[in-house]
Amino acid sequence: MKIDMHTHIFPEKLPDFTRKFGYGDFIHLDHHRPGYARMMAGNRFFREINENCWDPEIRIKEYEKFNTTVQVVCTIPVMFSYWAKPNDGLAVSEFLNDDIAGAVEKYPKNYIALGTLPMQDTELAIKELERIKKLGFPGIQIGSNINNHNLSEPQFLPVFEACQELDMAVLVHPWEMMGEEYMQTYWLPWLVGMPAETTRAICSFIFSGLFDKLPELRVCFAHAGGSFLATIGRIEHGFNCRPDLVAVDNPTNPREYIGKFWIDSITHDADYLKYILPMIGSEKICLGSDYPFPLGDLEIGKFIEDMDLSDSVKEDIFALSTAKWLNIDLKDYQ
Amino acid sequence: MKIDMHTHIFPEKLPDFTRKFGYGDFIHLDHHRPGYARMMAGNRFFREINENCWDPEIRIKEYEKFNTTVQVVCTIPVMFSYWAKPNDGLAVSEFLNDDIAGAVEKYPKNYIALGTLPMQDTELAIKELERIKKLGFPGIQIGSNINNHNLSEPQFLPVFEACQELDMAVLVHPWEMMGEEYMQTYWLPWLVGMPAETTRAICSFIFSGLFDKLPELRVCFAHAGGSFLATIGRIEHGFNCRPDLVAVDNPTNPREYIGKFWIDSITHDADYLKYILPMIGSEKICLGSDYPFPLGDLEIGKFIEDMDLSDSVKEDIFALSTAKWLNIDLKDYQ
Repeated sequence: MKIDMHTHIFPEKLPDFTRKFGYGDFIHLDHHRPGYARMMAGNRFFREINENCWDPEIRIKEYEKFNTTVQVVCTIPVMFSYWAKPNDGLAVSEFLNDDIAGAVEKYPKNYIALGTLPMQDTELAIKELERIKKLGFPGIQIGSNINNHNLSEPQFLPVFEACQELDMAVLVHPWEMMGEEYMQTYWLPWLVGMPAETTRAICSFIFSGLFDKLPELRVCFAHAGGSFLATIGRIEHGFNCRPDLVAVDNPTNPREYIGKFWIDSITHDADYLKYILPMIGSEKICLGSDYPFPLGDLEIGKFIEDMDLSDSVKEDIFALSTAKWLNIDLKDYQ
Repeated sequence: MKIDMHTHIFPEKLPDFTRKFGYGDFIHLDHHRPGYARMMAGNRFFREINENCWDPEIRIKEYEKFNTTVQVVCTIPVMFSYWAKPNDGLAVSEFLNDDIAGAVEKYPKNYIALGTLPMQDTELAIKELERIKKLGFPGIQIGSNINNHNLSEPQFLPVFEACQELDMAVLVHPWEMMGEEYMQTYWLPWLVGMPAETTRAICSFIFSGLFDKLPELRVCFAHAGGSFLATIGRIEHGFNCRPDLVAVDNPTNPREYIGKFWIDSITHDADYLKYILPMIGSEKICLGSDYPFPLGDLEIGKFIEDMDLSDSVKEDIFALSTAKWLNIDLKDYQ
């Protein structure tokens, strides 16, 4: 059994939020040719997507080819809209979450929903968290920073407390990448900024003591945790040599948190996956693809199938780790 | 024999550049107690340093304890001053380079100099490069970006061409870290931003085709290449799946450049060093420490001595790789 826990889905039709709210460059869709649409931020072209972005049936046919029967779905990070006025951010979140809820309702054995929250307003974020909990969502997806505030900032703690309280898992996805404005060539925000963002998020969780404050909170970090595991030597050494700068809110060595959070398997590199496996343990690595985007692992873990790993390690990565992260019963998807 | 190729040195006395030039927050020193000084950027405290930052003799006694007999020395990146007016940047570079030249002149078997250039002005940078070449410097140190311009920008090409022409090696050191203004807690610019900066620099070299344009240029990237080698899977996949964004200036797969540049050994992690060794080869890894700063490997490669590696691999890392990178004759330092 293969569950792909990192995929993005999108509504086929999107309200014109910019017109509705009267400001901003909210994403809208330009269905310029059959089966395709341009995502536009105001007049700025963001990305072309096709129907595998919005059509649950087409998606199922595509991912079945790679022995996958279940997708965990969440929105595309550009939709986070954390910059919007709080109530407008809430309205966007509600729309996206209702759309995803519809797909899950129609194909309950094929889709699992992660919701979006208006993280720019703690109260509204918790309100929407409670609503999607009632809709049956087992978790949420949030950005690696919120309007450039690190996830360690105190305004986010009540949201994470509510996630623990409500048994809602968290996927942290890089977005609003550091340095993006100065790295416009060669796709550097995606190739360099994203792994750094995820590392920033993990460090923010660790150094602020979030994992200790919320021992039952289950968090997964995208793209194999960015470069965190590769640079843990530097991070740990920084903690040891300058506690006055690093250990100000948490006296525990950052290396001790490896194994306390989940990561996805998106390394595009069997050697690196093999390197991090004994560090973090197979029970903390979840099959992910970033489907349907080209930067994703669109063969959905085929490189892991091809690796010389035990059946039990593969079972962990392909299904059991995700089941534990989301606290779901795999029988519901068989 | 152990050569430490990544160390920083600083003049004991620094002119008051801010007063001299009439603007800016150039670093000045406040010798507030014997053997120590505060580096100040205007009224802002930057870092306390001690005499092992400026006294070549004290340094030799310290690094001899770790079986090291030669240090490659360069300035502290905060001194790059790329933001200064070109002629003022040149004056700062000249002062720093002359100071380093003095240490090398006094202890020619113990120090090797890397110069600083006013990279904000191509012509002046080349002028200073030619001057320090005559002083006997085998190379330079530059930042990972120059006033937020990537090293792939065309204005830097003549400097790199001159480096190749003059047989001057290049050390790329992270500085002006992406996202720094938003990551003021937990030393994140040093722990997260620096590895990302170095990765950005390597990608800028590769994707702009610099290694092909200048096949004889010898470049070393600090801190084991940042997170480049750990994230090469993602970088390569980005190159393959979106050539329209990534392969615009160079059609060659980025993985093929591994082995064409040098990195230092500063991983603070024997496992990670062991992981990257077969990727890049021992002849491309140079012993580095970041001495005398606390984030450095202040036991100067002791963790490598303790690793289960062949003598020939250790000889490469401890001396031969650096000799080839700098094109120096080790006999001159025995």
